[in-house]
Amino acid sequence: MSDSVRLGVLGRGTVGGAFVDLVGERADAVESATGRRPEIAGVLRRSEGDFDEILAGSEIVVELIGGTDPAHDYVLRALREGRHVVSANKQLIAQHGDELFDAAREAGVQLRFEAAVAGVIPVIRVIQESLPATEIAKVFGIVNGTTNFILTEMATTGASYSDVLARAQELGYAEADPSDDVGGADAAAKIAILARLAFHTPVSLNQVSFEGIENVQPDDLAYAKEFGLSLKLLGVAERHGDGISVRVFPCFLYRGHPLAPIEGPFNAVMVEAPSITEITMSGPGAGGIETASAVLGDVVSIVSGSAPVHAVRERLEVVSDVASAFYLHLEVADRPGVLAAITKVLGDNEVSVKSVVQWGLGDDARLVMVMHEAPESRFGAALGEIAKLEFLRAPPRAIRVIEEEFV
Amino acid sequence: MSDSVRLGVLGRGTVGGAFVDLVGERADAVESATGRRPEIAGVLRRSEGDFDEILAGSEIVVELIGGTDPAHDYVLRALREGRHVVSANKQLIAQHGDELFDAAREAGVQLRFEAAVAGVIPVIRVIQESLPATEIAKVFGIVNGTTNFILTEMATTGASYSDVLARAQELGYAEADPSDDVGGADAAAKIAILARLAFHTPVSLNQVSFEGIENVQPDDLAYAKEFGLSLKLLGVAERHGDGISVRVFPCFLYRGHPLAPIEGPFNAVMVEAPSITEITMSGPGAGGIETASAVLGDVVSIVSGSAPVHAVRERLEVVSDVASAFYLHLEVADRPGVLAAITKVLGDNEVSVKSVVQWGLGDDARLVMVMHEAPESRFGAALGEIAKLEFLRAPPRAIRVIEEEFV
Repeated sequence: MSDSVRLGVLGRGTVGGAFVDLVGERADAVESATGRRPEIAGVLRRSEGDFDEILAGSEIVVELIGGTDPAHDYVLRALREGRHVVSANKQLIAQHGDELFDAAREAGVQLRFEAAVAGVIPVIRVIQESLPATEIAKVFGIVNGTTNFILTEMATTGASYSDVLARAQELGYAEADPSDDVGGADAAAKIAILARLAFHTPVSLNQVSFEGIENVQPDDLAYAKEFGLSLKLLGVAERHGDGISVRVFPCFLYRGHPLAPIEGPFNAVMVEAPSITEITMSGPGAGGIETASAVLGDVVSIVSGSAPVHAVRERLEVVSDVASAFYLHLEVADRPGVLAAITKVLGDNEVSVKSVVQWGLGDDARLVMVMHEAPESRFGAALGEIAKLEFLRAPPRAIRVIEEEFV
Repeated sequence: MSDSVRLGVLGRGTVGGAFVDLVGERADAVESATGRRPEIAGVLRRSEGDFDEILAGSEIVVELIGGTDPAHDYVLRALREGRHVVSANKQLIAQHGDELFDAAREAGVQLRFEAAVAGVIPVIRVIQESLPATEIAKVFGIVNGTTNFILTEMATTGASYSDVLARAQELGYAEADPSDDVGGADAAAKIAILARLAFHTPVSLNQVSFEGIENVQPDDLAYAKEFGLSLKLLGVAERHGDGISVRVFPCFLYRGHPLAPIEGPFNAVMVEAPSITEITMSGPGAGGIETASAVLGDVVSIVSGSAPVHAVRERLEVVSDVASAFYLHLEVADRPGVLAAITKVLGDNEVSVKSVVQWGLGDDARLVMVMHEAPESRFGAALGEIAKLEFLRAPPRAIRVIEEEFV
């Protein structure tokens, strides 16, 4: 049939299955929107189907395998053979984006990957299509639903990281091997993609520094609540003059920050620029049907018309010593002169204190402090000196804070 | 020059001026993104410039006049002459959308209007381009910044509507004649546009029922706070079987609702569908530079490639008797049997009570109740009977509540 558009689907896991079902359910709507009816040309499973055959019969290849091998080979071959590609694969785009964008541009085809970052939230489209002429200053957000679920549960119940992780695994919010999620690697791939698109610059995954949430203590969450702070694992890409920083770290947010109310497995992304102030977008971060919906949106866009493929416009340095504010948790001996000694170290390193509270007495005494912004190297130097003070009863614990306060 | 794209700008108010400046600042970025450099072919002011001359010299006409006369004539002529059009004009699209979409489709040109609804929030693009194959169940949100500023101030300060309105006028958040904003007509035009796009159905402005915020009392906000409720003026378009409802009304939201934290002059829109759960988008609702940015995003999209013009796919009935939950404020005589009489009237009309609190004693006694959802006709009937009860000391005050509670 000349009026159908043939889709070759690679992978038949949760998302692949949901996608095939969704195409069946929404074929009429796609035909109404585009004039062409979608048809599944074939589905490649691990144990079944032949890639070359599916490629030969498809106009658009939909890659839902995940991982880079064999996805990388398949997607590259599809692009070079003149097929449009839709992928939900963050690792593929983060690790091989440059090569794939070049191949798409040379072949004159589209490569779309909305579902690779922040699930159903259309952040890729908004950055690439609404804001391509906007000088974006910062793109950041909660891009991993597993860790946000865990942090929300820890804050709500007071339970330990390991207890909540076990619960998340039972509920299907965390995988049996959760290390990519809880260690920050998953979020690193996503923020690398967003940084590349927002700043039109190559970003390789090994330039992204990341920390996870494995060391977050329940009492940090409890003390921080007293300051009106809630903890999120953030991916943050930010322009600094001719450079950018691209990082993943757990971070406290004040009440009123647009990301503070995002709870459970939801994701949310903010884009800041002088000419737009800010846009915040939130929604489910994962889920078979939600991811399949984002993939179908990309398919419809390809059928509807052309769109430029991402191209590098600048080559910005990736910098690491940026300014941050920190929360600092110190278990100290309860005696005179302790606070003075600590504030002297901070002052000597030009780190100024915004607020300080002492909790407990005697062997349970602890200082919880929030700093103003300072270069991280200076705070790091101060932290090194504080760790050596003889009256500390445990290693200091430091967590970044976004200083912005809202009414 | 063959590689420039010539823009004819109609109107040189706040947005027009900001747009001309922004094109100058971001010409390099537009050229990088699209391969073509934007150039202002001419600017039509009320007292200066000739429309036909600007039309003849332009590839894209950017309509920033506002109102429908002469904007309607200019835009229609531009489309018929084969020019793409970008407009920030909600009244134009809401009142003359059908005619303009037809003209654009016949001429094979694009008509884009992201800036007409919710300022810098890319809700039009997301509905039209990310979700065209999604069966949207509901689109709703805070689409008027003036009223959200006023309600936020009233809730924060306890001041009266008229005092806060005067303050909003001083700060430039409300116009000298604020009636379109505070009466709900501005939000009605915006939700009519969103309903049309979300449901692919014609919606005329006179089918949109709207209420404003002029009658909101400070004590309603104070009592509602006790239930954890905050008040927003919402535009709501919702599917009901083969029909839709399209309405604007002040509405209480429980704490934890994604729209509850949206304060001051910000806008936010939610889209709900079974296959996406929900997407929430927020950002500044107005402002010269923000609106100009949304307009420039549309210009870049037109230069980047083609996109389908909105087309009617269905003709859905606009229904009015939908189910809602209500807050009810009653000033009553403080004596036995009063609550029983009121709950009997509600029960007779099959309206069930979710929570009730009595405040004050004697001449200051008042009952504040929140109902469960019921058809509005049934609640209206109950309200009519309650208003006639002899122990009421003032007319009852009812405000809708979105019942959904969040953790």
